[in-house]
Amino acid sequence: MATAGKVITCKAAVAYEPNKPLVIEDVQVAPPQAGEVRIKILFTALCHTDAYTWSGKDPEGLFPCILGHEAAGIVESVGEGVTEVQPGDHVIPCYQAECKECKFCKSGKTNLCGKVRMATGAGIMMNDRKSRFSINGKPIYHFMGTSTFSQYTVVHDVSVAKVDLQAPLDKVCLLGCGVPTGLGAVWNTAKVEPGAIVAIFGLGTVGLAVAEGAKSAGALRVIGVDIDSKKFDIAKNFGVTEFVNPKDYDKPIQQVLVDLTDGGVDYSFECIGNVSVMRAALECCHKGWGTSVIIGVAASGQEISTRPFQLVTGRVWKGTAFGGFKSRSQVPWLVDKYMKKEIKIDEYITHNLTLGEINKAFDLMHEGGCLRCVLKMHE
Amino acid sequence: MATAGKVITCKAAVAYEPNKPLVIEDVQVAPPQAGEVRIKILFTALCHTDAYTWSGKDPEGLFPCILGHEAAGIVESVGEGVTEVQPGDHVIPCYQAECKECKFCKSGKTNLCGKVRMATGAGIMMNDRKSRFSINGKPIYHFMGTSTFSQYTVVHDVSVAKVDLQAPLDKVCLLGCGVPTGLGAVWNTAKVEPGAIVAIFGLGTVGLAVAEGAKSAGALRVIGVDIDSKKFDIAKNFGVTEFVNPKDYDKPIQQVLVDLTDGGVDYSFECIGNVSVMRAALECCHKGWGTSVIIGVAASGQEISTRPFQLVTGRVWKGTAFGGFKSRSQVPWLVDKYMKKEIKIDEYITHNLTLGEINKAFDLMHEGGCLRCVLKMHE
Repeated sequence: MATAGKVITCKAAVAYEPNKPLVIEDVQVAPPQAGEVRIKILFTALCHTDAYTWSGKDPEGLFPCILGHEAAGIVESVGEGVTEVQPGDHVIPCYQAECKECKFCKSGKTNLCGKVRMATGAGIMMNDRKSRFSINGKPIYHFMGTSTFSQYTVVHDVSVAKVDLQAPLDKVCLLGCGVPTGLGAVWNTAKVEPGAIVAIFGLGTVGLAVAEGAKSAGALRVIGVDIDSKKFDIAKNFGVTEFVNPKDYDKPIQQVLVDLTDGGVDYSFECIGNVSVMRAALECCHKGWGTSVIIGVAASGQEISTRPFQLVTGRVWKGTAFGGFKSRSQVPWLVDKYMKKEIKIDEYITHNLTLGEINKAFDLMHEGGCLRCVLKMHE
Repeated sequence: MATAGKVITCKAAVAYEPNKPLVIEDVQVAPPQAGEVRIKILFTALCHTDAYTWSGKDPEGLFPCILGHEAAGIVESVGEGVTEVQPGDHVIPCYQAECKECKFCKSGKTNLCGKVRMATGAGIMMNDRKSRFSINGKPIYHFMGTSTFSQYTVVHDVSVAKVDLQAPLDKVCLLGCGVPTGLGAVWNTAKVEPGAIVAIFGLGTVGLAVAEGAKSAGALRVIGVDIDSKKFDIAKNFGVTEFVNPKDYDKPIQQVLVDLTDGGVDYSFECIGNVSVMRAALECCHKGWGTSVIIGVAASGQEISTRPFQLVTGRVWKGTAFGGFKSRSQVPWLVDKYMKKEIKIDEYITHNLTLGEINKAFDLMHEGGCLRCVLKMHE
């Protein structure tokens, strides 16, 4: 492309300080260096992790930065040595890399590739330990190795999933985070089997994706737990069969669920990031085999706790990141499943706005009726 | 036998109150009722769980009672409807029952049979909700459904494992608790695979059995962690390949182990019952896949805690009771493995005393050099 090798100036939403409105700025995006890919982002969604870092509570959060990690776009140019994608490819940036070479990737036991973690955690790129974003020469930090709230971004080549050219990017952008996280927690981490009883704490996008995953895995009962009863109508469409609002009970929610299920659920999923709920999710599990999976991200410094007896009597406490999916290998497979109508995406998108409306989009996210808001990045 | 159907008066060690020396008394042991088995105990070992309840810290502890749960003997008589054992059979009483009929047994997922739990937790027998032990008409509580510190005891038929008549009962009595707990934690709960790196916290009988299990599973490194360095020489014989004494380091033991193992161990086992050690055992596990198994029994009311990030980044927290072994089905198999010299037992027995010396045996247990003390029950 004509822009290859050149700095691109484009619009991006910059987070200058915690909790201050994002500012749409003209940002300079440097060309990709060796092992890097520059992507024209067409659509990005917002996720609670963006809001968490923006809030200033994330100890790894660096400012000024460009947030965003759930998006889709087209490869604009590639740096030296990049072979797996080329300009024009449709791609989903993946905050969880997959290098296929590190100890983690080769273990066969985890999706947590370690290759670029040091750089992405520090808001920079591996090659020269610098940012590719700047405004008038002043660097702006990357975020999660993706920074999709920019019309162009630069990512490591191990963080790019090439997807079907026919897939609608305004939809499959959601496969960058929340939906795979929920589906994978069920399929990869918990491995829910037919006939199982499942409890889901928190019915946002991730919780609903857990419900969808549980339904497709053949779960017999899918119990949605949320303090907002209005969510139940929507949740039914994703596979939730029963609804429990903790506010309707005096006794602890774990006891409510144990009573409702003759001893506890087979699998529970915490999709909020609240350490008290994480405990309840573990303790509502059935003695002998109940498995609880933590998906939500708790605030820094907070701790989970329980009596060890809960584990000694057979409950298992686990967690998951990106649902255990290997990003580059499996995001394209998820896109194909969407194209074959085997998984939902459209139903999670409740709002569509533009990059310029991003602060409004964050406001919407904190309201009950919003699941995912997708931003169109170019007019 | 001549005693069938009659009350037997025999010697037993009675715990009248927490922390007061056990008293050898003439105890009346009633005949077995329907579904019960009366066993002549020939040998019993002592375990820390006996000492825990005796200490008064166990909220389920009831006094006066007859402790003991790691033993072997011969069936004296059986109650109505008992078909799987008969007088003369050599047996190991099992504190973890296996009825093969309840939700737990039929799940295929756990060894935690629930059939007689309500009775054994309350120190009584299911049939009439009373004790079979008494002294001059005053009932004495059962303990863990076994009460092996008596020359004769009555147990539920679902709590009796019939074993090879050739097996030496003064040895295989250890298969009633500690040794299977350690072996099974490795084989059944953690499922350690060849090449794995294992850390064991606490090198008592259970910890050494974990080492033996890990070695037989093909573990590459078996790191023993104990604050008593004298234990290392013995531990080598059970498969421990490296020894770490937390007292030799300033930094937290989890960090010591992470540094020693390029990122953490694949499996860790807590064999002490200390909630701080349980946390260290989890946190020394490798990101992405490390699994920690809690075996030790913590004091009542104590809680484990960690940052949820530990689980979200792939560590798994589990526990085990009786090593996940199905007691009636698998204790005989363990006896056979011992007879074929595939597992050790003799090496755990450091002391042999008699029932009359039981208080001395408990004193020995709290000394570093004692693994298991086996009591001969009849002169």
